[in-house]
Amino acid sequence: MKAKAEQLPSKQNFSEWYHEIIQKAEIMDVRYPVKGLYVWYPFGFKIRQLVYSKLRELHDRDHDEVYFPALIPETELGKEGQHIKGFEDEVYWVTHGGLDPLDVKLALRPTSETAIYPIFKLWIRSHADLPLKIYQIVNTFRYETKHTRPLIRLREITSFKEAHTAHKNFEEAEEQVKEAIKLYKEFYDFLAIPYMVIRRPEWDKFPGAAYTIAFDTIMPDGKTMQIGTVHNLADNFARTFEIEYEDIDGEHKFVNQTCYGISERCIAALLSIHGDDLGLILPFEVSPIQIVIIPILYKGKEEKVLKASKMVLEKLKEFRVVLDDSEDRPGAKYYKWELKGVPMRIEIGPKEADENSVVVSFRDEKKKFKISMDEINSELVLQWAKEFKDRIKNKAIGWMKEKVRYFEDLNDLADWITKGVGLTHLCKNVDCGMKVEEEVKGNVLGWFEELNWIDAEIDGECIICGGKGKLVAIAKTY
Amino acid sequence: MKAKAEQLPSKQNFSEWYHEIIQKAEIMDVRYPVKGLYVWYPFGFKIRQLVYSKLRELHDRDHDEVYFPALIPETELGKEGQHIKGFEDEVYWVTHGGLDPLDVKLALRPTSETAIYPIFKLWIRSHADLPLKIYQIVNTFRYETKHTRPLIRLREITSFKEAHTAHKNFEEAEEQVKEAIKLYKEFYDFLAIPYMVIRRPEWDKFPGAAYTIAFDTIMPDGKTMQIGTVHNLADNFARTFEIEYEDIDGEHKFVNQTCYGISERCIAALLSIHGDDLGLILPFEVSPIQIVIIPILYKGKEEKVLKASKMVLEKLKEFRVVLDDSEDRPGAKYYKWELKGVPMRIEIGPKEADENSVVVSFRDEKKKFKISMDEINSELVLQWAKEFKDRIKNKAIGWMKEKVRYFEDLNDLADWITKGVGLTHLCKNVDCGMKVEEEVKGNVLGWFEELNWIDAEIDGECIICGGKGKLVAIAKTY
Repeated sequence: MKAKAEQLPSKQNFSEWYHEIIQKAEIMDVRYPVKGLYVWYPFGFKIRQLVYSKLRELHDRDHDEVYFPALIPETELGKEGQHIKGFEDEVYWVTHGGLDPLDVKLALRPTSETAIYPIFKLWIRSHADLPLKIYQIVNTFRYETKHTRPLIRLREITSFKEAHTAHKNFEEAEEQVKEAIKLYKEFYDFLAIPYMVIRRPEWDKFPGAAYTIAFDTIMPDGKTMQIGTVHNLADNFARTFEIEYEDIDGEHKFVNQTCYGISERCIAALLSIHGDDLGLILPFEVSPIQIVIIPILYKGKEEKVLKASKMVLEKLKEFRVVLDDSEDRPGAKYYKWELKGVPMRIEIGPKEADENSVVVSFRDEKKKFKISMDEINSELVLQWAKEFKDRIKNKAIGWMKEKVRYFEDLNDLADWITKGVGLTHLCKNVDCGMKVEEEVKGNVLGWFEELNWIDAEIDGECIICGGKGKLVAIAKTY
Repeated sequence: MKAKAEQLPSKQNFSEWYHEIIQKAEIMDVRYPVKGLYVWYPFGFKIRQLVYSKLRELHDRDHDEVYFPALIPETELGKEGQHIKGFEDEVYWVTHGGLDPLDVKLALRPTSETAIYPIFKLWIRSHADLPLKIYQIVNTFRYETKHTRPLIRLREITSFKEAHTAHKNFEEAEEQVKEAIKLYKEFYDFLAIPYMVIRRPEWDKFPGAAYTIAFDTIMPDGKTMQIGTVHNLADNFARTFEIEYEDIDGEHKFVNQTCYGISERCIAALLSIHGDDLGLILPFEVSPIQIVIIPILYKGKEEKVLKASKMVLEKLKEFRVVLDDSEDRPGAKYYKWELKGVPMRIEIGPKEADENSVVVSFRDEKKKFKISMDEINSELVLQWAKEFKDRIKNKAIGWMKEKVRYFEDLNDLADWITKGVGLTHLCKNVDCGMKVEEEVKGNVLGWFEELNWIDAEIDGECIICGGKGKLVAIAKTY
């Protein structure tokens, strides 16, 4: 299971870099014998556990975790007209059990609305049962015919977190949409991943939703990747699946629903946005190994150096620390742990052992500094971890700012979106949206819900019709 | 989502009791519209999380967690002849993606040997890569045509823990089998579930294994349930999937493998074995609610009682405690929390509030006792938790001892196994085994690996041929 110590391609060639790092850093093994299916290596799986623990923690504040079946009968999946139209081309169908054909075909869930909502009908009786907020983390399936890619576009999404909520009315569902956005912001801030919060245009919303708000981030090649979506379903599914409650006044009313999801694309973004030509750069909290201690061994001084190294190991044992006392050269060790994204490195040579000091460096910086061993403690490490995250986050935001430009000219916009995200103003007229997409050969991601790190004016004239427009993002997308 | 306050059927009618408790205690919702597929309620899912956290903790000591795809191409599944024969009747087949038929049919994993071992071939190069020990917790699928039952016999096993290991030779694989048995014993001891460790007969071993050791427990109706299996695969799969390593001497050799699994049947056993006519009885460590505090409210004294209750809540906040200050009568509260299996109950009425005392009782005992509030602390609660577990474990062992009898007469044995487990001596001759099964209309579970709580002689004469026999268990099985 050892990765070979070959040079990574430069991150400038993002597609190659990504392909190589996924395999070499032992995130996923891409050699499974079915297109679009991949194997989580132990190291990758640990990152997944750490990232999804945070996602669980955030949801557990006021959602209950549940599990619904992976198989959905064709009859249920087909009930909501828009919904099935949105998914029918990419559903995997189970048609046989053993050698027998099944009476009713079963879909491998592409998403679980139609598995969950028939049960919501049974769980919800009165206003006292509302709001109902549940989530699950499950594998979902899409028959992708396009080019597949680990964590980004795959046939088994192994780690789909989907939340589903039911409320008394549209306003409360809308409040929940805002809550979900807040939750996702907290999650991506935790991962130091910058995002744009964007309301999708009508033609790109979730099939069956009243509206969709998406989180998009910008990948190293300038294309955007959707890393989370929040849907207000209004009472569309409630009407289809007859999910009613008895209100205080005794009246029977349809619930209003929301659903919101994040897949392992959050990990694709984590790896891609922070990584560099040497490998991964992982925030302290989600790095399987947080600190690596490298003893610099010279003949005759091994014992002293190892003793000092073990003292540091002991001091830091509450963290995920590795003391790399293997026989590799220090250079090979640096290479290995840089590739894996370990945020902090501590080196100890004979000089440091004598001085009772250590040399500290961070994965994102070239510089090293010396510090007395006595000064090292948990608080200091956590302070370093915080500063580390601030640095990589600011770096990512700085880089993304370079990748986002405002345009008033369609041709310039069309040129730019081969490299980054174009901003312009657009009215809500579908024809204007379609015209832009056609002209620039890109996707209207939609209208900004909030600007965060984006410098631009929300209001302006529609680039097509000159009418009243709002700021939109346009990009090539994953 | 409230369960109705109706009486449970007596546990004497185990099948009905089980069906009702699964729904009423909100473990699983059985109303999903496909046979053999069930929905984990929030409460049930919390039990699952607690139980599987322990299973993870035990494996994490020296296994790495991974994730392999749920879809296995027909070509791989079919490679090992015995293996495919064992599963072909119960595999779900994915034949279509969208509207297109697939080139190669995909099986929904019934178990993952054939998904994992082609990758083991890539991961294992030299003796330095061995032993390799991984596990995953995944959903697996079986097209069950028999009567299905939540957690016990289902079409989507939602929580299958499967471990797979590779070793240099048969002896090391055999050592690992012993390690796995130790691990499973620790797990079931933690759940206070008594088990029999039994070597399956040739005709009932895992398809493709050299031999299979199973954990069986006895359910309230006297039938046995297999709650874990450990297989020594020898080099059978290694030869099929060409998993070789280079030994120290440069020679290329096939690895020897083991695999071992536990499904959500561990939870079925937990609920069934400890529960009683009032509902679940959960060990402290895996109970979603460990302590319930019930204030006994009398008019005019509410405030004082609630204040005292909150003090206890504060004192015990490191545990999973609920203060039930709802408007229900105390009796209704008792009923509700007994049904859910909460191990400890603390009652506080006006008298107790005055005396600065509380009334404590445990879910498995009728008796209550008073204790000064000052005496309550974490150590005492943990002591109670330990005693609680010892009691329910001893009770379960006591009950199971009653259900196990030794026989020298086939007819008596045949009568008995409609109520419990029959012991007798049997030689290893397949004909003798087959004859017994036919005569008593039951299953030879196999030969005891160890006796634990069973009182019987290991050696004796084969009940069929009179030759040299060893102790076997015979039973009707789930």
